[in-house]
Amino acid sequence: MVKNTKVNAAILIIGNEILSGRTQDTNTSTLATWLNSIGVKVNEVRVIPDIEKTIVETLNILRNENNYVFTTGGIGPTHDDITAQSVSKAFGIKYEIHKEAFKILEAYYKPGEFNEGRQKMVWMPENAKLILNPTSGAPGFSVENVFCLPGVPSILKSMLGGLKNRIVGGQPILSLTISLRTVESEIADSLTKVQDQNKAVEIGSYPFFHAGKLGVSIVLRSENQNKIDNCSSQILKFIKEKKIEVVDR
Amino acid sequence: MVKNTKVNAAILIIGNEILSGRTQDTNTSTLATWLNSIGVKVNEVRVIPDIEKTIVETLNILRNENNYVFTTGGIGPTHDDITAQSVSKAFGIKYEIHKEAFKILEAYYKPGEFNEGRQKMVWMPENAKLILNPTSGAPGFSVENVFCLPGVPSILKSMLGGLKNRIVGGQPILSLTISLRTVESEIADSLTKVQDQNKAVEIGSYPFFHAGKLGVSIVLRSENQNKIDNCSSQILKFIKEKKIEVVDR
Repeated sequence: MVKNTKVNAAILIIGNEILSGRTQDTNTSTLATWLNSIGVKVNEVRVIPDIEKTIVETLNILRNENNYVFTTGGIGPTHDDITAQSVSKAFGIKYEIHKEAFKILEAYYKPGEFNEGRQKMVWMPENAKLILNPTSGAPGFSVENVFCLPGVPSILKSMLGGLKNRIVGGQPILSLTISLRTVESEIADSLTKVQDQNKAVEIGSYPFFHAGKLGVSIVLRSENQNKIDNCSSQILKFIKEKKIEVVDR
Repeated sequence: MVKNTKVNAAILIIGNEILSGRTQDTNTSTLATWLNSIGVKVNEVRVIPDIEKTIVETLNILRNENNYVFTTGGIGPTHDDITAQSVSKAFGIKYEIHKEAFKILEAYYKPGEFNEGRQKMVWMPENAKLILNPTSGAPGFSVENVFCLPGVPSILKSMLGGLKNRIVGGQPILSLTISLRTVESEIADSLTKVQDQNKAVEIGSYPFFHAGKLGVSIVLRSENQNKIDNCSSQILKFIKEKKIEVVDR
């Protein structure tokens, strides 16, 4: 990966349903795309089960190694939602009723509907900052550099807008994709030479199979547009020599 | 998670394209579903970049902590495919031409087409066991408890059949899903009580939004069918009392 990015993050997906294969995680892709767009590079993703000890230990590793950690899952009203209590333990701070979150949910539900199950969702680490939820009321929260979001993809997505001003990113990572009607082994040698001459650009090669046809997408990533352009010219040169077709993808 | 499973695995997804958000990983779900069906529980998933040092370090942690490790990605012909050399380093063994793999690919390609780029795919850790690839020729490989598979989902899927006899699983984990037309907070308290009385069954609660309607899927998981049935009866009892509709999902 390109080395000169100063701001990085880890994503921690909390949920047995991903580890059992029952649910296909899509939050990684959502979060990673959004983070890249605001200049934050994702270093690592981990998926772990709903076990308090595992959450506490993993969180304490990731929050020390990264500028930011984003967790998803485990902040709902049921017994298997243990993210908030685990984050409290990881930081060694009190797990208590968050007054502002209580007011939000009290106002959100009809009179009499803010029952014990729902009240579980306002228990948070002491002095947590809320992440507002425009979709279903119950807020997420952050403690220092750890941001806790829900697991339901549509709700998570709706909460990112309100989070943007709280994340300080580095230079956005720019990318350019060149898609070709070829197979990787036809271009591997030439591509290696271009990578050797362009160390500041991360060059990825990804085969695809689309509409019944094979192809390869070459993805160039860097914080510097000139370096991408220069690298791209060198690639287009050998592509032309090899008479390989450039396609949309 | 249910504690009494004896055989476990970690999944290691190697690829910048997942961390940048460009590509949505689907191999985790494929592998996890397959592993569960043969009695192997997935403890952890990690997604890491195409950096040799990171691959070596992560692999050495995971292979010591789990019965099996499955890696995906980085075994193609291009410069960013560094899984085989990284696995060699992690085990401290030679990285060399695998004679059997060489023969397979020599026969797979037309005369003259088995070029230098393609020959990169037969470089493997010394004495690696091959994992045959019925889709595109180039085999995966295993070293001890580490199994290295490609990143392209359709190719990965086609290779699992040939792998089954090489994985010794424990008792398969059984599961039962009860889907309800309700929201989590309506059932949270009752469900907590059932979980407290059924410690050997892992009870998960997952909200869904399908065809314009909200619902919750309750998933019961255990190696023991009787325990699942008993737990299920207790849930259906409170569901009936609360007059909540059971739905297909």
